[in-house]
Amino acid sequence: MPTPAPTKTSIAPAPIDFYFDFSSPYGYLAATQIDALAARHGREVAWHPILLGPAFKASGNAPLVAQPLKGTYVLRDLPRTAQYMNVPFNMPTPFPISTHHAARAFYWLNDRDPGQAKSLASALFKTYFVDGRDISALEVVVEIAATLGVDPDEIATVLADPVIKERLKSEVAASLARGVFGAPYIVVDGEAFWGSDRLEQIDAWLKTGGW
Amino acid sequence: MPTPAPTKTSIAPAPIDFYFDFSSPYGYLAATQIDALAARHGREVAWHPILLGPAFKASGNAPLVAQPLKGTYVLRDLPRTAQYMNVPFNMPTPFPISTHHAARAFYWLNDRDPGQAKSLASALFKTYFVDGRDISALEVVVEIAATLGVDPDEIATVLADPVIKERLKSEVAASLARGVFGAPYIVVDGEAFWGSDRLEQIDAWLKTGGW
Repeated sequence: MPTPAPTKTSIAPAPIDFYFDFSSPYGYLAATQIDALAARHGREVAWHPILLGPAFKASGNAPLVAQPLKGTYVLRDLPRTAQYMNVPFNMPTPFPISTHHAARAFYWLNDRDPGQAKSLASALFKTYFVDGRDISALEVVVEIAATLGVDPDEIATVLADPVIKERLKSEVAASLARGVFGAPYIVVDGEAFWGSDRLEQIDAWLKTGGW
Repeated sequence: MPTPAPTKTSIAPAPIDFYFDFSSPYGYLAATQIDALAARHGREVAWHPILLGPAFKASGNAPLVAQPLKGTYVLRDLPRTAQYMNVPFNMPTPFPISTHHAARAFYWLNDRDPGQAKSLASALFKTYFVDGRDISALEVVVEIAATLGVDPDEIATVLADPVIKERLKSEVAASLARGVFGAPYIVVDGEAFWGSDRLEQIDAWLKTGGW
C-alpha cells in the first residue's frame, strides 16, 4: 500500500543529492558553491563521492582530458571558468587520479559527523585542485583528515577494513542505479542536473519550485 | 614601406565565430541568443553551419541521444533548459538528421546577403526544433528559403551544383582545422567556448575584455 504523501509543511524537504568524484575538476567547482546555493533556499545538501570509472563504463564516456580536442579545450575552459566563478584553481598533475581512499574516508566520517565529512571533502578538493598535491595515496588522506582533528591511527585502520570498501562499492552501485553518468550530478527533488554549468538553473529551480 | 598598424579605434573588431549544426539542439538554443548578446557589446557574429559527423569522428564523440544514460538525461535537460531560457522548443523526430542541404543553402545565401542567410538559418532551426518538421530534404530547404523571397528554382539548381558541395566540404574542413569538436562552438577573438551553457561567460568575456 502506498504511503500517503506528506504535506509540504509537515516535514523538512529531502536534501539535495550532490554526486562527485574527488578527481573531477568541475565537481570541485560545484563543491565550492552547492551548500551556499542550497542554503539560500533553506535546503541541505547530501554529498556523495563516487568513482567515475564505473560511471564512464556504463555511459560509454571517457575522462575529459583523454578525449581528443575536447581534452585540450577543457584544459583552457577549467581555469577560465574557475576565474569566472572566483574560485581558486590549478590544474593538478597527475590527472586523473584514483580516489577510493578519499571517498571511503568521507563515508566513514559522514556516518559520525556529516559536517566534518564535508570539511574533509573540501580540504581534499583544495589539496588536489588548489595546492596541486596528489590525494590518491592513503597516507595523504590520513594526513589531511588529521588536520581536522581525526585520529590518524583510527582512520588508517578503518580505511584498511573490508567493511568500508564494501560501503563505497554499494554507494557507487546506488549512484549507477540512479543513472549518475558523470560529475557533478545533482538531484533536486527527483530532478537531475549534470555539470557545474547547471548551478544557475538549479538556483532558479529552487526559487520557483521547478517548471 | 610597411603599412602603419591601425589603431584600435580605426577598425571594427573581427566578428565572433559561431559554429553549429542545424541538427544540434543546443546549437539552436545558442542561435536564438548569440546575435543579441554580441550586439550588446557592439559586436557582429559570423554564422558557420557545419556537419557534426566529421567533428565527432575527430573527437571520438557520438550524437548525444546515442549515448547511454547521457542520452536520456539530455532529453530532459533540453526542454527544461529551453524553458529556463524562455525559448520555444520541441524535441523533433527523427533526430538527429542530415543537414548538408541546409548548410549549403546557408553558405550560398551568405555570400549574397549575410542578413538573409541568418534569417534562413533561424527559419530552418524553428522549422525543425519548434514546428517539428524534418528539414533534411532538399525540397523542405527550398520551401523555407522561398518563404524568405528566395527564388525556388534558383536555389534548387544551386544546391544540386558540385560547387556548393565543395564549399561546404571546405567549411567543415576549416572548422576541424580550428579544433571545432561539438556545437555550439563559439570563438571570440581567438578564445573558444563550447556549449550553450557558456553564453553568460561569453557575455562577461565581452564586457571585461577577457581574463
